Amino acid sequence: MLVSVLDLLSVFIFALTGALTASRAQLDLVGFVFIACLTAMGGGTARDVLLNRDAVFWIADPRYVAVATAAAILVFFTAHRLESRIKTLIWLDALAVSVAVPVGVAVARGMGFDWPVLLIMGMVTACMGGLARDVVCNEVPLVLKARDLYATAALAGAALNVVVYMATSSPLFAALACAIVTFTIRAGSLALGWRAPVYRSTPPRQ
Amino acid sequence: MLVSVLDLLSVFIFALTGALTASRAQLDLVGFVFIACLTAMGGGTARDVLLNRDAVFWIADPRYVAVATAAAILVFFTAHRLESRIKTLIWLDALAVSVAVPVGVAVARGMGFDWPVLLIMGMVTACMGGLARDVVCNEVPLVLKARDLYATAALAGAALNVVVYMATSSPLFAALACAIVTFTIRAGSLALGWRAPVYRSTPPRQ
Amino acid sequence: MLVSVLDLLSVFIFALTGALTASRAQLDLVGFVFIACLTAMGGGTARDVLLNRDAVFWIADPRYVAVATAAAILVFFTAHRLESRIKTLIWLDALAVSVAVPVGVAVARGMGFDWPVLLIMGMVTACMGGLARDVVCNEVPLVLKARDLYATAALAGAALNVVVYMATSSPLFAALACAIVTFTIRAGSLALGWRAPVYRSTPPRQ
Repeated sequence: MLVSVLDLLSVFIFALTGALTASRAQLDLVGFVFIACLTAMGGGTARDVLLNRDAVFWIADPRYVAVATAAAILVFFTAHRLESRIKTLIWLDALAVSVAVPVGVAVARGMGFDWPVLLIMGMVTACMGGLARDVVCNEVPLVLKARDLYATAALAGAALNVVVYMATSSPLFAALACAIVTFTIRAGSLALGWRAPVYRSTPPRQ
Repeated sequence: MLVSVLDLLSVFIFALTGALTASRAQLDLVGFVFIACLTAMGGGTARDVLLNRDAVFWIADPRYVAVATAAAILVFFTAHRLESRIKTLIWLDALAVSVAVPVGVAVARGMGFDWPVLLIMGMVTACMGGLARDVVCNEVPLVLKARDLYATAALAGAALNVVVYMATSSPLFAALACAIVTFTIRAGSLALGWRAPVYRSTPPRQ
Repeated sequence: MLVSVLDLLSVFIFALTGALTASRAQLDLVGFVFIACLTAMGGGTARDVLLNRDAVFWIADPRYVAVATAAAILVFFTAHRLESRIKTLIWLDALAVSVAVPVGVAVARGMGFDWPVLLIMGMVTACMGGLARDVVCNEVPLVLKARDLYATAALAGAALNVVVYMATSSPLFAALACAIVTFTIRAGSLALGWRAPVYRSTPPRQ
């Protein structure tokens, strides 16, 4: 129940980021919907295909597609009012990632997988949609921006989820702790400049 | 029957576009075959994996691979005779998309899915092969060229397919109407400058 | 048995190349692990999803993930000692490809597929991981570098594998012959400038 609310929420917010990226590429309305769906459904689709789930989530329940389409239409008619699309995009993406990690972990847990698969599926669900969005639209993927915590935030959230669930057996507590910690780390990186040690050597010679 | 003819045709034409893209990147013969297969099989593969079909179509029947390989070899030895490779590529791509939409819809319909899935699988089958070709070869994806009708044409064709099939129960009429309308819209966009309303705001600041 | 040794080896070496690419992009440690896993698991994952295997290999056995993670950590702390990261990367990639081809062929053979599928799965397993690495990190994909033998080497190795297995029924001989020939052709291309005939026409007008 909590998971399906979080799932719909992450689909909606990721779709907003996809549509904002489409607005940067000046696409038409169908292009907005296309990129919004790719972003919103990409991570969960990768997860479901990798786990060989009976049906990919948005094929089992096409309402997800309707939600992503609605988000795309909303952005199409309102994006020009934003002061900074890129800033809105980055913060919405942070929110979507935080909500998607516990969903990915919960789906894998529900299929009986062990903790290494849970960690990976949390990261896959959270990172692959935005990665597809950025690769297709030829932007530098947010997940690969040097010196930002992104995959790290998702991994920390997923790990906390596993630990809290072991300790309390409460999927609710585990999901909430996971989302809060993921968002806190990502937000700290964006707003306060939190950093992980980066590989220090010289950049590649060209 | 009609569907398997259309399917072979779309594989062949998409393979030609893939090989033409390979010629722009000056690859060797195996590179031509690689990109031709990626383009020709990409959309249908995405469809089959998403729908969890028993076997991906070209693994069930490797003759598709033979057809795509033949197309790649043909282009390898004749592309230098073309006046404009990019123009040929764009028009062949329009043809391949028009033929691939009804195939995608028909496959999903044959598996008993409902209309939202039919629309999406028409678009996935038609758009994903060319998208993979362009992302891998680092060209601007045709599907994302601002101000061109591409995904829109595929969506309109798929929607007409669904409506005609509901009205007539004839897969033949539905497929033909779908292919003709998809091609007409795409061709109108390419030749006559038909446009959908595009998001009007400023491009992104760099 | 031989196949699982080769498999672990190819995962390890591909992970090294992924981590080296991450070092060129100056990512943090989790970024290294992310790209290392994408590269190391990408080809085999594509193979397993396409063949509709019961479980993707690294989900069935998460030790693969541990091996790739170890490789990423190793590179993170030692890459600055290398004289030329790009040269190391290219030669390790050649080694990984050579080891991955026989694994892909053996997996498809074990599932009872016919020779065209065996050839393709050898190439997919060997080429898709490196392709994903390069597309995501926005490098020119090694497999598409004009005038280099890459997919060609994989195809020749896979074909020899099929022939030797037909002649001797020995999976060991087939795998070894395949790995040696793939590496020889790739190394000959890198060190001695072996070339396949390349499409000769003019490059694209811009």
